[in-house]
Amino acid sequence: MSLIVQKFGGTSVGSVEKIQHVATRVIQEVNKGNQVVVVVSAMGKTTDELIRLAAGITDKPNKRDMDMLLTTGEQMTISLLSMALQTKGYSSVSMTGWQAGIQTEAVHSKARITRIETARMKEELNRGKIVVVAGFQGMDSNHEITTLGRGGSDTTAVALAAALKASRCDIYTDVDGVYTSDPRYIKGSRKLEGISYDEMLELANLGAGVLHPRAVEFAKNNSIPLTVRSSMEETEGTLIEEVSNLEENLVVRGVAFEGEIVRVTIYGLQNEFTGLAAIFSTLADNHINVDIIIQSRTDINSTNLSFSIKEAELEDALAVLSQHKEELGFTRVEHETGLAKVSIVGSGMVSNPGVAAQMFQALSQNSIAIKMVSTSEIKVSTVVNMEDMLKAAQIIHDSFSLEALQPKPQLAK
Amino acid sequence: MSLIVQKFGGTSVGSVEKIQHVATRVIQEVNKGNQVVVVVSAMGKTTDELIRLAAGITDKPNKRDMDMLLTTGEQMTISLLSMALQTKGYSSVSMTGWQAGIQTEAVHSKARITRIETARMKEELNRGKIVVVAGFQGMDSNHEITTLGRGGSDTTAVALAAALKASRCDIYTDVDGVYTSDPRYIKGSRKLEGISYDEMLELANLGAGVLHPRAVEFAKNNSIPLTVRSSMEETEGTLIEEVSNLEENLVVRGVAFEGEIVRVTIYGLQNEFTGLAAIFSTLADNHINVDIIIQSRTDINSTNLSFSIKEAELEDALAVLSQHKEELGFTRVEHETGLAKVSIVGSGMVSNPGVAAQMFQALSQNSIAIKMVSTSEIKVSTVVNMEDMLKAAQIIHDSFSLEALQPKPQLAK
Repeated sequence: MSLIVQKFGGTSVGSVEKIQHVATRVIQEVNKGNQVVVVVSAMGKTTDELIRLAAGITDKPNKRDMDMLLTTGEQMTISLLSMALQTKGYSSVSMTGWQAGIQTEAVHSKARITRIETARMKEELNRGKIVVVAGFQGMDSNHEITTLGRGGSDTTAVALAAALKASRCDIYTDVDGVYTSDPRYIKGSRKLEGISYDEMLELANLGAGVLHPRAVEFAKNNSIPLTVRSSMEETEGTLIEEVSNLEENLVVRGVAFEGEIVRVTIYGLQNEFTGLAAIFSTLADNHINVDIIIQSRTDINSTNLSFSIKEAELEDALAVLSQHKEELGFTRVEHETGLAKVSIVGSGMVSNPGVAAQMFQALSQNSIAIKMVSTSEIKVSTVVNMEDMLKAAQIIHDSFSLEALQPKPQLAK
Repeated sequence: MSLIVQKFGGTSVGSVEKIQHVATRVIQEVNKGNQVVVVVSAMGKTTDELIRLAAGITDKPNKRDMDMLLTTGEQMTISLLSMALQTKGYSSVSMTGWQAGIQTEAVHSKARITRIETARMKEELNRGKIVVVAGFQGMDSNHEITTLGRGGSDTTAVALAAALKASRCDIYTDVDGVYTSDPRYIKGSRKLEGISYDEMLELANLGAGVLHPRAVEFAKNNSIPLTVRSSMEETEGTLIEEVSNLEENLVVRGVAFEGEIVRVTIYGLQNEFTGLAAIFSTLADNHINVDIIIQSRTDINSTNLSFSIKEAELEDALAVLSQHKEELGFTRVEHETGLAKVSIVGSGMVSNPGVAAQMFQALSQNSIAIKMVSTSEIKVSTVVNMEDMLKAAQIIHDSFSLEALQPKPQLAK
């Protein structure tokens, strides 16, 4: 008997009919003799509706009350799915995040899971029950309801799989796997049979949107095999594990893109040695995720610094910087909105230095201006104007011929 | 500095605009220098919408999951009201039932409050915060989310007032006080300035619908003065306290009525001495509320027994009876639906034996058949056909001239 964790996202539970369908997918696993823990998100547009309600009250809802409001979404889904399972003759128990023992940091709107107290879940599983857990939420040590941030249900699922030592974590979603790029926008996008944690991590971080990056990290650190598969179609999906044996010679695995990026530039930073660390630890303390960082010295005494963040975090970031302006020691801050990030990802890239060059060349041949660049062992990211985003992604996807399975991409020398 | 508990029902918080208005009513009390705990229900039709969602999944949702589902309604309201208060510059903290320390029996859908752990609330009040608590809900000793049943937010408010030793509990609602009868249906219905706990208790139990009976009981047992007042208009409302000094000579205070009553008749009960007790304790164990009870012996060895319950509890009651048929020792059960209860309430009734007679006479003169009768020191109830309900109530209201304040009603000899 294996223990499987399944996760169904908002689209998969978007209506009463879809919840009934999810129940049948859960029951399929149970009928194979497995113990099943199911993690669900809020139904379809529920979260957006709740946000709209709050917006009717105030422009700046406080985060504690926002968590209180948003967590009702998943609580609705767990109760309905549990009813559906019982109606089909299966024994189940619905649990909020705190009931499932999910303990988090004392941070609202994007808390991290610190510990999972599994006793209650194990007890229910041993009684033969299907355990239905609300994703995205937990409780801090002061009994405050917290959320893990958008996409946090993936993290809940993987964290539960790790804590319960599950043999697999299946992420059911409205797409049937991980693609070389987003098939809605990029022609020739192709489903991957397998991908490594690190590649998936880069794709997730880069806004591929299929899986939350923290979920992938959690899975990697705990060696939980993940699958991404369709909740509607009975297809195989994409397996994410330590080393993907499939298509191993492929240098570029996929092209990811993400809009609503802002470049923030800090001028006249006095002390470049301690200043850099101070700025980024101040931002991190305030839970602002900085992505690409570029530093340039303009004269002997001061340094300019640019970094990219998501547009949603701009207001917070500017507030934090202005609040700490004196101690951080800079003269002024500027920002440029309307940007996007386009990236290539692939673990074969390390040994192929020409990959980045080919990407830049493809973009420049098509007159797309590159505003920032960042590279790692398995990815190259460029920041471009928002209006160039999809065009850039298509050009790169075409340039590396990702629509076809192939042992080696054609590298531009 | 006094501590005031305020309760706003579903209609009062039915929209974002109404929640903003509730915030101003709360702030009025705070600005008088009072500490305020606010209890709120789910917004307007939210509870009905949640019930509809569940009905899309199953005809018979289990009660645990139903509680899980319904409690999201109040959780939404507390977060929105707390946001509204903060936007207006006041410090507040929203709390679910379990966060507010409301402990209940381990029963779903109509649990009773067993204890309130007030430490957290007191701490927040002492920090100068307005405490916003989700009505209708609590937690049992197994950390299960429970509900107090419909109308339970009134009970939450009064129980918090008792536990916190509040000086007053104000129930804000969509009516501006307690009336001699329901002004929507009965001509000449008049607002009462004051009423005793016992009278209110009978009116509440009889379906007057303004206040939940358990709330009134709780207030009586803890001597908490209650007011019922309008959330929209700045009027005085009705004060409910130990002995109402107002209109004290009035024999009949009000006429209450309630539809959807069922008469259940049990035939051939073998042992009338222990049988009665066994039947009603079995029903009570299953949380079925029996109202009027009539017993009649048909022959030497067996007894027939009739009682009235609410139509919503019929299915449960019949299941419980059939399940225990052998041990309870009866031959068969029948029931009659389509009935209603019409009652008069007034603490002056004890010393005026002619009151019941006048009521029966008024009904019989208008050819309304009385199916069951029950009397207490301060009330007389009759069960009539559903289609006669409003007519009967109007006849009785007229007969006792309740539209006018008067020292003595005209009694029929």
